[in-house]
Amino acid sequence: MKPILIVHGGAGDIAQSRVQGKLDGVRLAVREGYRVLQHNGSALDAVEAAVVSMEKDENFNAGYGSVLNLAGEVEMEASIMSGENLDVGAVTLIKDFLHPISIAHKVLTDSPHSLIGGQGAKQFALDKGFPTVPQESLISENAQAALKEFLENGGEFGKTEVGIAEGGVGTVGAVAIDVNGHIAVATSTGGMTGKVVGRIGDTPQIGSGTYADDNIGGVSSTGHGESILKVCLAHSIIKLMESGVDANTATKEAVTAMTSRLKNTAGAITLSKDGDVGVYFSSKRMSWAYIKDDKLFYGIEQGEVLEENYVK
Amino acid sequence: MKPILIVHGGAGDIAQSRVQGKLDGVRLAVREGYRVLQHNGSALDAVEAAVVSMEKDENFNAGYGSVLNLAGEVEMEASIMSGENLDVGAVTLIKDFLHPISIAHKVLTDSPHSLIGGQGAKQFALDKGFPTVPQESLISENAQAALKEFLENGGEFGKTEVGIAEGGVGTVGAVAIDVNGHIAVATSTGGMTGKVVGRIGDTPQIGSGTYADDNIGGVSSTGHGESILKVCLAHSIIKLMESGVDANTATKEAVTAMTSRLKNTAGAITLSKDGDVGVYFSSKRMSWAYIKDDKLFYGIEQGEVLEENYVK
Repeated sequence: MKPILIVHGGAGDIAQSRVQGKLDGVRLAVREGYRVLQHNGSALDAVEAAVVSMEKDENFNAGYGSVLNLAGEVEMEASIMSGENLDVGAVTLIKDFLHPISIAHKVLTDSPHSLIGGQGAKQFALDKGFPTVPQESLISENAQAALKEFLENGGEFGKTEVGIAEGGVGTVGAVAIDVNGHIAVATSTGGMTGKVVGRIGDTPQIGSGTYADDNIGGVSSTGHGESILKVCLAHSIIKLMESGVDANTATKEAVTAMTSRLKNTAGAITLSKDGDVGVYFSSKRMSWAYIKDDKLFYGIEQGEVLEENYVK
Repeated sequence: MKPILIVHGGAGDIAQSRVQGKLDGVRLAVREGYRVLQHNGSALDAVEAAVVSMEKDENFNAGYGSVLNLAGEVEMEASIMSGENLDVGAVTLIKDFLHPISIAHKVLTDSPHSLIGGQGAKQFALDKGFPTVPQESLISENAQAALKEFLENGGEFGKTEVGIAEGGVGTVGAVAIDVNGHIAVATSTGGMTGKVVGRIGDTPQIGSGTYADDNIGGVSSTGHGESILKVCLAHSIIKLMESGVDANTATKEAVTAMTSRLKNTAGAITLSKDGDVGVYFSSKRMSWAYIKDDKLFYGIEQGEVLEENYVK
């Protein structure tokens, strides 16, 4: 099978000043991930590489650049899933590492468990040799500005449209199909600006932020986490595809139904097992990019599809 | 609408010596919850009352009697969901309280978030006035024996059939429909014996351990958590019912598919919005009970349905 990789850089009311950085970042991330697939790497390694690229990029709410909780700290979460056997690795309430997605991948391969949180997740990461980084090194100026603005505005949740500094919400994610037809999905986030200490969102909840099944397809979602988890957004899209709906229609239907019922916005990226692509968001903007048949497609505005040749 | 309440006391390879205690416990719990419905209480209050009854009962792996992690500690999690508006409250990695389900209910009503874990969950509970209890007061002799046996046997996971002392896995849960036709689901657990510190299972993951939607029905599941979350068991049953499958068939189909694909066992209890009941488990035993039309039905063995009159 010809490999495909799609990434998103988060849905939300993204400020104009942040658009170019996100477009550059998703194009870089999709290339990083696709390179793995071109060298016959696994879908799991490809989605990890794409997400790692965005976790170290200040333009995204994951790893460095994660938004801050009410205590002014970064508390991150990530999940990764293999569509081959439904194996899952996920971490939550993690503070001291640059790449939560890599720890999640290690949970998938090395732990009898699927999701580990807090002090236990830190201990697992240390046992596996992941280097800690100082909390300050994860905190960007933009994230600090977003928390300041959130607090000054009285801290109203329930909208993706929080923060002109674009610190409201957002997540990064990737979905890949490798040469063997295996599907993998990875999602990583710093959560939402001003969240209480200990808040866990949709990202580590399988079926909400992440789902993969070689028999059907893969989905990574982003947006208002508390709404996404209430409708199991990723699993809802998977179930629509299982019933015969194409990837793009399934993505649009499920996101639209969530926004209609819960009045918050989200977005998702989807691949069907046959390589059909789905991209949809009910928020103002969502950055995304994919490589298929030596073409790189990307966008961030509603209805926008830009294209460039992908040179290896 | 005539109210209905169903509870389960966990699926697994339950030892004969534990059968009677569990049968007594689920009959007590279903009465406690049903009493709330009879007094025109909400489905949310009814499922909380039923689960509270099992959390304080040593016969169940939730609250007092929770199984122990590798550090010999109780680390609990619980979730509750309202089918009316899909509101969710959940907690995880909580150690110092007897009734995690009541804290989860408070998250549902009082927090902008849906799931809070670890130190943040403890702080939330303290802020809301929940009394702490000493760790030791949550630890039963049975749970200690189960951890000892787990460690002596080399600690193999991946089976529900862990521990003749029945400390392997198990969860408690309840699903209710109140007089107004609203559905609620609550699930609470101590997880699995010998889990690593920080392990989070299916119980707080919405769509895995718990799901409720007034338009369709409600499900609480139990069994091998890492398998349940990989198939989003509760949400899968809900989606089958949405497509027209009856509650009992949907429960059986989804549990059977999970066991077939992942080789671990589980069980679930289900109510459709019309009050149809589903009970199915692929494990050796699962205790369950429900009250409908002034009759109390219960059982724990495969194929067993016992019955007694329910006197108010």
